[in-house]
Amino acid sequence: MKINKNYDNLVPSYLFAEIAARTNAYIKANPDKRVIKLGIGDVTLPLAPVVIDALKKGADELGVKETFKGYPEYEGYDFAREAVAGYYQRNGVTVAPDEIFISDGAKSDTGNIGDIFGADNVVMVTDPVYPVYVDSNIMAGRKIVYASCTRENGFLAMPDDHVQADIIYLCSPNNPTGAAYNADQLKAWVDYANKNDAIILYDAAYEAFITDDCPRSIFAIDGARTCAIEFCSLSKTAGFTGTRCGYTVIPKELVRDGHNIHDLWYRREATKFNGVSYPVQCAAAAVFSDEGLAQIRESLNYYKENARIIASALDELGIYYTGGKNSPYIWLECPNGMGSWEFFDYLLRNAQVVGTPGEGFGKCGEGYFRLTSFGDRDNTIEAVERIKNLLK
Amino acid sequence: MKINKNYDNLVPSYLFAEIAARTNAYIKANPDKRVIKLGIGDVTLPLAPVVIDALKKGADELGVKETFKGYPEYEGYDFAREAVAGYYQRNGVTVAPDEIFISDGAKSDTGNIGDIFGADNVVMVTDPVYPVYVDSNIMAGRKIVYASCTRENGFLAMPDDHVQADIIYLCSPNNPTGAAYNADQLKAWVDYANKNDAIILYDAAYEAFITDDCPRSIFAIDGARTCAIEFCSLSKTAGFTGTRCGYTVIPKELVRDGHNIHDLWYRREATKFNGVSYPVQCAAAAVFSDEGLAQIRESLNYYKENARIIASALDELGIYYTGGKNSPYIWLECPNGMGSWEFFDYLLRNAQVVGTPGEGFGKCGEGYFRLTSFGDRDNTIEAVERIKNLLK
Repeated sequence: MKINKNYDNLVPSYLFAEIAARTNAYIKANPDKRVIKLGIGDVTLPLAPVVIDALKKGADELGVKETFKGYPEYEGYDFAREAVAGYYQRNGVTVAPDEIFISDGAKSDTGNIGDIFGADNVVMVTDPVYPVYVDSNIMAGRKIVYASCTRENGFLAMPDDHVQADIIYLCSPNNPTGAAYNADQLKAWVDYANKNDAIILYDAAYEAFITDDCPRSIFAIDGARTCAIEFCSLSKTAGFTGTRCGYTVIPKELVRDGHNIHDLWYRREATKFNGVSYPVQCAAAAVFSDEGLAQIRESLNYYKENARIIASALDELGIYYTGGKNSPYIWLECPNGMGSWEFFDYLLRNAQVVGTPGEGFGKCGEGYFRLTSFGDRDNTIEAVERIKNLLK
Repeated sequence: MKINKNYDNLVPSYLFAEIAARTNAYIKANPDKRVIKLGIGDVTLPLAPVVIDALKKGADELGVKETFKGYPEYEGYDFAREAVAGYYQRNGVTVAPDEIFISDGAKSDTGNIGDIFGADNVVMVTDPVYPVYVDSNIMAGRKIVYASCTRENGFLAMPDDHVQADIIYLCSPNNPTGAAYNADQLKAWVDYANKNDAIILYDAAYEAFITDDCPRSIFAIDGARTCAIEFCSLSKTAGFTGTRCGYTVIPKELVRDGHNIHDLWYRREATKFNGVSYPVQCAAAAVFSDEGLAQIRESLNYYKENARIIASALDELGIYYTGGKNSPYIWLECPNGMGSWEFFDYLLRNAQVVGTPGEGFGKCGEGYFRLTSFGDRDNTIEAVERIKNLLK
């Protein structure tokens, strides 16, 4: 028997292992020093009370014969899909409940969506990039082309009519750079996709961090319904990284290669997925209630303020960065021409602050560095003071 | 852009839609008749109290900063993996916790496992068959061969040295036939797989229904650790169809085509999955506690007694069947040479009992019929009385 040989083409990722190794070695050698981690990509604040109540109410219903729930619909309960549709409506975007698939997270769906596409498509990703887009397509044997994100384009790659791509991953606000497309920029991508018979896989996992007028959904853009699939997540929006719930939107009019893409994905889900846990869907719906939205706003504001504190310090220091405003991530140019691992070591040894070297996310990340706003407020303030003292 | 053309080879399944249509038409035309459904493949009894408590305790932990949980390990929390390993140990099988992957259900994993295998493998499934095995491999473009299950082999196909298969799906106790392999029969499959460089994908979702000495795990068989992957589910064991949790076991010594299969699956999961919800994993671990096992036994015994009631009636009537003892399913030969849809209509019109026509599960299901034990006790008894009156 043969394994999937494409797996041999995967590059092992040692990024976070290497960060942990260097950090732990430093701590061991300097037990008196207090190291602050601003590299963390996971939320730290608890779920909102209304969400916990919904989770527990859902659990209780499973304990009583009359309210017990068996197999869920593959695409999610109507109440959850309607809650998501209502959330879109609040943000000025109309999406029908039956265009929404409740998922166990944006990562699963951005990874699995490739199942319905041919192996001979050309995939475009930005560089730097969230590794799931790359690895899941290497596993499928697809050719991948990279759209460079640099200081010149504000880490927001734009379409190039000379490059033919069939499947285009866009993440906005971006992980890792925090840069967010405005409406005009997204319109250019939508036009490119419609013109070139391509599909945009739009990862909006960080939409809740948008504070200015950047679109929170690609479906705010004219023409997106004929070329885009959107992936969203409650992980960062409502602290669901451990609770696991997201949603994927496929407009009914999205057709490629003579096939309705919504129907193809439904068939995929009906065969290789069996829906999301009932109490988790109850919790997700609670997020989008008035009370839920008010409660999650507190956590979002906490992270946003952390991001603002970091960004302000970089402004003071005159260091170039993206993100910090529409994003929990701050992506900065390493000072004094340092390489990203060089700056990692420099910051660890001299300020006892841990971040993430940009080159871990792709070639264009070389010379850049990611800080995140998911830490504790006091630690964030102290880390920023140390960075200012070191680099001023 | 091109879609995955293999999807064009999928055959739409109208089985349950057709059952619903015929049933609803009958009910509409005969509003005075009380129809009893014994076709249901979903559990109906609520979760055990200790499981609900664990779900809610897990939820509460997510609401407090000190006990909040972020991203889970892709392969599951240690406490959940240890609980599963302990359950195996109780059943006399040793499996290491780090060979266990906690999943969101056996269906997802039996559907997705193909990701790590080449498209050029030959897949063997039994006929009749659980449709997920077939459809997920059609999606991947693999050649499928069928091992016929008939009255002659007791609906337990055995390996044939003249047939070369690389990937072999076995489900025991079987869905839909309820037939269960004994140790000698499983040993023959294990020997075939080891000799032919094949992998057995062993679906043990119904192991908790085994009452005689049939193995509850393929890893009870010598040699299985070098040729088998086992998929289990809490759906039928503990009523988790709506809660969503299962587990997959890949022995560390399973190597094919020069690759460690455990490592390949880990890489797949790390890329295209992000672990199971924390409260759900708490609930799963609670199932395998002493208290949990005692509580789920009550529901299992309820379903098993329903199965015994149905099987006894068929014994009385002299109708051939498989299952009923080690399984919630009873697979019977339609009386008087009726076809399976013919018998469906006959039973609906004359006894107001709904079951599942066997041909919906494959060619060898023609002339057979599935009843299930997941219904209410009183309804099961009444349905059985009606069947006896009709067919005696």
